[in-house]
Amino acid sequence: MGVGATGIRVSTTYRPDMGLDETSSSAAGRWLPVSNPFGVHALVWTGGWSPEEAEHAISSTAAAGYDLIEIPALDPSRIDIADTRDRLAAHGLRTSLTLGLTFANDINSEDLELVAAGRSTLMSALDITRGVGGEYLGGVIFGAMDKYPGPTSAAARANSVAVIKELAQEAAGDGITIGLEFVNRYESNLLNTVQETLDYMDLVGEDNVVVHADAYHMNIEEDGFREPLMRCGDRLGYVHIGESNRGYLGAGTIDFEEVFGALVDMDYRGVITFESFSSAVVDPNMSNTLAIWRNLWSDGMDLATHALDYMNTEMDRARDTIGTR
Amino acid sequence: MGVGATGIRVSTTYRPDMGLDETSSSAAGRWLPVSNPFGVHALVWTGGWSPEEAEHAISSTAAAGYDLIEIPALDPSRIDIADTRDRLAAHGLRTSLTLGLTFANDINSEDLELVAAGRSTLMSALDITRGVGGEYLGGVIFGAMDKYPGPTSAAARANSVAVIKELAQEAAGDGITIGLEFVNRYESNLLNTVQETLDYMDLVGEDNVVVHADAYHMNIEEDGFREPLMRCGDRLGYVHIGESNRGYLGAGTIDFEEVFGALVDMDYRGVITFESFSSAVVDPNMSNTLAIWRNLWSDGMDLATHALDYMNTEMDRARDTIGTR
Repeated sequence: MGVGATGIRVSTTYRPDMGLDETSSSAAGRWLPVSNPFGVHALVWTGGWSPEEAEHAISSTAAAGYDLIEIPALDPSRIDIADTRDRLAAHGLRTSLTLGLTFANDINSEDLELVAAGRSTLMSALDITRGVGGEYLGGVIFGAMDKYPGPTSAAARANSVAVIKELAQEAAGDGITIGLEFVNRYESNLLNTVQETLDYMDLVGEDNVVVHADAYHMNIEEDGFREPLMRCGDRLGYVHIGESNRGYLGAGTIDFEEVFGALVDMDYRGVITFESFSSAVVDPNMSNTLAIWRNLWSDGMDLATHALDYMNTEMDRARDTIGTR
Repeated sequence: MGVGATGIRVSTTYRPDMGLDETSSSAAGRWLPVSNPFGVHALVWTGGWSPEEAEHAISSTAAAGYDLIEIPALDPSRIDIADTRDRLAAHGLRTSLTLGLTFANDINSEDLELVAAGRSTLMSALDITRGVGGEYLGGVIFGAMDKYPGPTSAAARANSVAVIKELAQEAAGDGITIGLEFVNRYESNLLNTVQETLDYMDLVGEDNVVVHADAYHMNIEEDGFREPLMRCGDRLGYVHIGESNRGYLGAGTIDFEEVFGALVDMDYRGVITFESFSSAVVDPNMSNTLAIWRNLWSDGMDLATHALDYMNTEMDRARDTIGTR
């Protein structure tokens, strides 16, 4: 179910005893271990998406050694589909699209006008995903990404489920996966945990809907990382790796050994995307929504290359220690 | 500087080799180790503060074995001062008052009307603190406890500093300590970290203003627990112990061994208050502000006694291992 399960990435520390996957191959015909496709969020590079900003973000992502760039689609109108598709192809990058709805287009609402507006935004985002050659549309697509004034209701939840079901059916025709990124309590009143997301997915009942797990949010809401991740099984389809304060990996409180150990032990093969936010790179649509008040870094390339090295090192360590957890 | 530094609490696992404090004594005349006064937040027991609710909260706090109850004063008008003071005295409990300002009375604002409204709220809360015999007024008193639409400004910060300076001077006459509870990005755009709080305190320049550190918020914003706590030195005056998801201690991601180890190593003698929130106990003023959407517990007494035992155990363990960190 994981997005990009067929992706092949040569581990930097391959050794014959690591265990191979029969579907793996390299251009040279040798068997190599399958690693996960690694992605990076565009806001590491730029807050906008003009052709120049898109080029900077896409070329930097490729230069840093990533396989995929995650493009925020909170404002679908600002994305030039053909331009983006061409630049992705020129740099050989895969892409995923993510967004959060707002209180103005909230499908987690009893107000049918807001639900209709949200449905429209999601269908537009699906068009963009399709148009740029993306294989994944995810994020806080099940409701507003905002601090709600109160709990949700059964009626609001039902409206959300109905729209996501329709979106998933529409996406299935193009082989696009729909990901539900459960987030912390300040960004949703509907899906804050793995279990709430699995329960919601049962109501949606579509095979191309997956759990999108984010370590940053899990650190606030879950009892830990290993058990909830493994509970997803093959319903886990996308992973965000973010530090507890959304800065440099390792400079926070998250136990990434536990996170990557779980991903290896459950044989997760999907995309792993690094996400980080600093007041040094501002997207007016996103930075205030995400409450990015502090400057945690200013050099995106240093941040991104450090993160890729960190993630590869942790994945390698987790593979080296299979059976010990 | 810590609130309650003279409090004496007999450790449940006293041993002669633990090291004694010369100011300590017991009724029996033996020297006993000084432990920290332990408190519990009233929202573990009740969402309101009618005489019946106050009695339930205060008597339950005493029955669970705590030294202090923390009373939320978001709506000062609902607290009957004489009634509360008498009930505290009857049960032999100490108390602290905490609150968060709102966007309607925000001193972290450029709007002088809002600043004046906030000043008025804080002075009322100081009156209540004085009236009920409290020794501490803290919380998100430096600005609104809410998700801000954008970053703060130099002018807004200066307004906040000026009011807190005045509040502290007013409080000093009654020996009341003023605590600044830095909170996560979704609850303030002004003070999210220890360092920001220390810098702000330098601007205030009053000796009875202390850092109020909360493990729940530190887990989201700091690089870790030990270094920021120890950086406070004797400017740390109040501690909130809360789990990463605000439920049972130990059922989350926070490394409490690190937290309590730092408190012991820095010889912190102030109040340590347990804080936890569940949708099972609702304060209409607070629960939605804090985004309490999930039922993490329903039995406050079980929760509170478990927490006190957990904190005592961790403090004892930290004392047993002094010199090993």
